[in-house]
Amino acid sequence: MEMNIPNTPERLGHQIAFIVEIDKLKKILRQTLLTDSSRQENDAEHSWHLSLMAMVLLEYAPKAVDLLTILKMVLVHDLVEIDAGDTYIYDEQGHTDKAAREQKAADRIFALLPPDQAAELRACWEEFEARQTPEAKYAAALDRLHPLLHNFYSQGRMWHHHGITSDRVLKRNQPLFSETPALWQFAEELIRESVRRGYLTQ
Amino acid sequence: MEMNIPNTPERLGHQIAFIVEIDKLKKILRQTLLTDSSRQENDAEHSWHLSLMAMVLLEYAPKAVDLLTILKMVLVHDLVEIDAGDTYIYDEQGHTDKAAREQKAADRIFALLPPDQAAELRACWEEFEARQTPEAKYAAALDRLHPLLHNFYSQGRMWHHHGITSDRVLKRNQPLFSETPALWQFAEELIRESVRRGYLTQ
Repeated sequence: MEMNIPNTPERLGHQIAFIVEIDKLKKILRQTLLTDSSRQENDAEHSWHLSLMAMVLLEYAPKAVDLLTILKMVLVHDLVEIDAGDTYIYDEQGHTDKAAREQKAADRIFALLPPDQAAELRACWEEFEARQTPEAKYAAALDRLHPLLHNFYSQGRMWHHHGITSDRVLKRNQPLFSETPALWQFAEELIRESVRRGYLTQ
Repeated sequence: MEMNIPNTPERLGHQIAFIVEIDKLKKILRQTLLTDSSRQENDAEHSWHLSLMAMVLLEYAPKAVDLLTILKMVLVHDLVEIDAGDTYIYDEQGHTDKAAREQKAADRIFALLPPDQAAELRACWEEFEARQTPEAKYAAALDRLHPLLHNFYSQGRMWHHHGITSDRVLKRNQPLFSETPALWQFAEELIRESVRRGYLTQ
C-alpha cells in the first residue's frame, strides 16, 4: 500500500517516514511489568518514564550535566530495539551479539531521516551506549534504576520468573551507579528490601 | 501495603512517590490506534512519540524556540489525565468540564513532588495549556498532528467509529497550526488524502 502523502516536500517526507516507523517501539516488550503488575511494559512508555525520571532526579546527577542532552539520549536510547529486540539485562547469551544487532538496526532506522538528522540522532544513541560523558552515565544509571523500581512494586514477579538472585542484581547494576552515589544508595536499599519481603531471592 | 523504602531521605522519597504514581499514565487509553491498528495508544507512549516529533520537526516551529522547554512540556502535558481521563478532541460534552477536572488532577499529582519541583512541573503544564508562548504553540500543533498521522495510517478506523467528518477535523485542528504553516499544509494534505481513500467521511 502506498502510504506517501501527496505534495509533501522530500525532506518532510523522510521525517514523517521516521516518525511513523518508530511507532513500532510501542510494540517492543520489556522484561519488566508495570508497577501494578497488569502487563509488560513497552520500550516507548519506558523511554517516556525515564525522561521524567531524568527531570525529577537531576540533582543526583554527577555534576553540572546538560538536561537537554540527557533527554535526547533517553528518548532515542531504545530505538534500535525495533529491529534488535529487547535484550534482558540478565541474558548473558543475548549480550554476546547485542552490539552487532543494534549497530545494524541503527544503520537502518536512523537512515530514514534526512542525513543531518540521522547523524545527530545516531550520535545521541552512541553517546548513550558509550557511557563516557556525565550525561550518558546519569542516563545509564536511570535506565537501571527504573526496572529495579518496577520490579519492587510488582513484587519481583519478573525476577522470580527468570530466577534472578540478589547477588546478580547487585553485581550487574552497581558499576552503572559509580557517579550517582545517592541513587545507588537508594537502589541498594530497594534491593535489600526486596530480599526482606521475598520479592527477590537472596 | 507499606511501599516506602527504608532509609530514604524525605525529598527523594517524594520524588520516587511521584515517579511511581505517574506509571499510571501507561494505562490511560486514547481514542487513537497504533499505526498498525493493533490496539489503542496510551498517554505515556503518545508523550514519548510527541517528544521525538518535537525533535525531528523543530525546523517547522514558529521561530527560535527552546527545545528543552518544549520537551519538558510535552513530557508532562498529559499527566493530569491520570485522574481526569483522556477527553476526546471531538467530545464537546467532555470539554465543558475538562479544565476543572484537569486543574483538580494537577493539584493532586504535582503536589506529590517536593514543592519547588511541583511548582516547576506544574508551570510546564500550564504553559502548554495556555498556548501563548511559541514553544507551547508548537507543542500544541504536534499534539494535533500526531493523531492525524495515526488516524491516516490506521485507515481512519477511529474516525469512522466516532462518526467524525472532514469538516470537523479541519475546523477543530486548523486554529492550532496558525504559527506552523508548513505543518498545517501537510496536515491538510493528510486530511484530503484520508477523504480520497475513504478513511474519513467528507
